[in-house]
Amino acid sequence: MKKWMKRKNYTAQSKKHLRDKNLQEAAKVLSLMEVDDAVDVLDEVDDATKKQVVDMLPEDAGNDIQMILSYEEDEMGSRMTTNYIAIRRGIDIRQAMRELVSQAGENDNIGTVYVLDESDKYYGAIDLKDLIVARENDTLESIINTTYPFVTDHEKIEDCIDELVDYAEDSIPVLSETKELLGVITAQDVVEAVDDEMSEDYAKLAGLTDEEDLRETTKESMKKRLPWLIILLFLGMGVSSVVGAFEAVVAVLPIVMCFQSLILDMAGNVGTQSLAVTIRVLMDENLTGKQKLHLVWKEMKVGFVNGLLLGSLAFVFIGIYIACFKHNAWLHAFLISGCVGVSLMVAMVISSLVGTLIPIFFHKIKIDPAVASGPLITTVNDLVAVVTYYGLAWLFLIQIMQIVS
Amino acid sequence: MKKWMKRKNYTAQSKKHLRDKNLQEAAKVLSLMEVDDAVDVLDEVDDATKKQVVDMLPEDAGNDIQMILSYEEDEMGSRMTTNYIAIRRGIDIRQAMRELVSQAGENDNIGTVYVLDESDKYYGAIDLKDLIVARENDTLESIINTTYPFVTDHEKIEDCIDELVDYAEDSIPVLSETKELLGVITAQDVVEAVDDEMSEDYAKLAGLTDEEDLRETTKESMKKRLPWLIILLFLGMGVSSVVGAFEAVVAVLPIVMCFQSLILDMAGNVGTQSLAVTIRVLMDENLTGKQKLHLVWKEMKVGFVNGLLLGSLAFVFIGIYIACFKHNAWLHAFLISGCVGVSLMVAMVISSLVGTLIPIFFHKIKIDPAVASGPLITTVNDLVAVVTYYGLAWLFLIQIMQIVS
Ligand SMILES: [Mg+2]
Ligand SMILES: [Mg+2]
Ligand SMILES: [Mg+2]
Ligand SMILES: [Mg+2]
Ligand SMILES: [Mg+2]
Ligand SMILES: [Mg+2]
Ligand SMILES: [Mg+2]
Ligand SMILES: [Mg+2]
Ligand SMILES: [Mg+2]
Ligand SMILES: [Mg+2]
Ligand SMILES: [Mg+2]
Ligand SMILES: [Mg+2]
Ligand SMILES: [Mg+2]
Repeated sequence: MKKWMKRKNYTAQSKKHLRDKNLQEAAKVLSLMEVDDAVDVLDEVDDATKKQVVDMLPEDAGNDIQMILSYEEDEMGSRMTTNYIAIRRGIDIRQAMRELVSQAGENDNIGTVYVLDESDKYYGAIDLKDLIVARENDTLESIINTTYPFVTDHEKIEDCIDELVDYAEDSIPVLSETKELLGVITAQDVVEAVDDEMSEDYAKLAGLTDEEDLRETTKESMKKRLPWLIILLFLGMGVSSVVGAFEAVVAVLPIVMCFQSLILDMAGNVGTQSLAVTIRVLMDENLTGKQKLHLVWKEMKVGFVNGLLLGSLAFVFIGIYIACFKHNAWLHAFLISGCVGVSLMVAMVISSLVGTLIPIFFHKIKIDPAVASGPLITTVNDLVAVVTYYGLAWLFLIQIMQIVS
Repeated sequence: MKKWMKRKNYTAQSKKHLRDKNLQEAAKVLSLMEVDDAVDVLDEVDDATKKQVVDMLPEDAGNDIQMILSYEEDEMGSRMTTNYIAIRRGIDIRQAMRELVSQAGENDNIGTVYVLDESDKYYGAIDLKDLIVARENDTLESIINTTYPFVTDHEKIEDCIDELVDYAEDSIPVLSETKELLGVITAQDVVEAVDDEMSEDYAKLAGLTDEEDLRETTKESMKKRLPWLIILLFLGMGVSSVVGAFEAVVAVLPIVMCFQSLILDMAGNVGTQSLAVTIRVLMDENLTGKQKLHLVWKEMKVGFVNGLLLGSLAFVFIGIYIACFKHNAWLHAFLISGCVGVSLMVAMVISSLVGTLIPIFFHKIKIDPAVASGPLITTVNDLVAVVTYYGLAWLFLIQIMQIVS
């Protein structure tokens, strides 16, 4: 059977046995799987069942699985597999090759061979290619790379995923604080981790607490959507009460109310754009204070120039619209559309700032910036836009220009 | 030097030489790089320079690069490398091993050894592990996997990326229509492709035309943001003119205008959630008609139940708010908040539908469903919500209940 079919089959089988409470059978299948895949399956059952099944596993697989289960879901340790080849320093090429052949039966991640020192600590790595190409009278030492990259078991996946992608190796060792070799992260695990990290950010940007898939029940889907919706409902009521404070403006000049949705939406859109860019930048790099300032400054510039352009467009087109369809005098029409244009510009600059500063702030206080989801930013920016627009309409149109319809 | 440092250095150096118009030097560095990485660099310069540099490359690397450059950016062929090991069928284990050692000097993707038949067509693949573990008197044929997965050169990356992730192999062969082995896709290329695909969807959900990074100029960033903003500005003006049609409602009962932003935002949020889920589902699987119906039906159910819940919350809290802070009679207050609650529910159901049907429709007519970005869906749902809310307020509150403030 092909490897990927085996992988999928084993996962499906073990899940089925667990569902059917066929724990003995489940343990049998789990012991045949890659340790990290087995852990993924076990992560879905309750703690009592998990413990029961782990106790039924053969000692070897059981120990490995127990070790990996001991890590938090966001730690590198939870993603590693114990399927790797390790040899001892000090042997020669021929012996190393013989070791490789004997271990390869059980462990099939053979692209990189790991080397331990006399006291069983991690020492370095050998590219299998170099071992194969080496001549009998070369020393093993000459092909060991002692500066091969590694990660430590308690490192957060988020923090080193970008590095792992850059290394582009087929496996990276996971070490303990005391330099013991605990397992390896394979290229496939990196693919999985990248997929997970990005799916999470994507879901959060859309105001979901987690990624959904087709097979979920309606109830599960609701659980992932309701938390944000409830928060947003109450934030929205807050915005409504602020709009309520400007009821007088609308009573005097009802036409201004037509353009509320336009200004709120545009502020929201610009804010979401800034938010998405900032979250991505924060995930990809460790920014210095100077770079953060640069980012904020750039977002402001983009917001300002885009705002100037869109504000001008709004000024012209809305002016014409009001004059023609709402039968206002041309001067009045352009005073009102001028107010819309200026508000649009101001709201866009502030929204860019909000969309940049909020995720930077979350990142600073060590909260995943992705919780500042798109809908949240939109609602915050609604507030900004309402105050800007109605405030300006009241001050400029009603108090200064004394326009009343 | 370490492999990943070499990779980064070569890329940086070649880009620098190209910027400095140091074409000879650029060609020298490019010829040392992995073919697909060289192609990535060349993709960033104009066609004339590209041609000049390619002509300067040594024949071997030049041909490979030219071949890969000939593919569209979204075809598998553009992602492959020619760095792989291929042997001829019919030799024995010892000869195969010798071939491997002699080719490994130049090509370091050795985890899978590809096998060609007598007429130089692709025949199958050997897991390096099996070759290493094989005994001298085994036949080569016995370790060749003739059902190893492959992709074809003109396949769209989007269409097979999920399969590639599932295969979890360190390399997959890319074949021509006539079964010639053209190159391989490595696990690192899969990581890159997953990253690209998801970044693109993420950017589009936020209303950006493409992913941005820190090093871009303000002008480049503006170009990625303006297209959607301009479209949305005009769509927003459309919404405004629809709101304008309901000016009479607001003139008679100004308080209803306070809750416009709430209903529009919630409809937008629900629509974005449905959109994000649908885009992901469409990317991950090839849905049958029945599954699509199931998805639409489920989204409607989620929209309805969430709508019922949030509508009830809105009814209660907004009723209390209007009665207490706006000094309306309790009956009036709850008639108005009832109108808000019902509109909220109706708008949420319709928005879920819109957020599901629009990407399914785009997918059907072979347009990337991700172009139905979050802001677009939000604006479409604004329209729905405005008509529902003001329509209901006019019909129920003003015509039937005859409430006038
Ligand atoms: Mg895993
Ligand atoms: Mg896990
Ligand atoms: Mg390697
Ligand atoms: Mg794995
Ligand atoms: Mg994250
Ligand atoms: Mg990245
Ligand atoms: Mg590439
Ligand atoms: Mg490319
Ligand atoms: Mg393999
Ligand atoms: Mg590559
Ligand atoms: Mg796509
Ligand atoms: Mg909105
Ligand atoms: Mg997937």
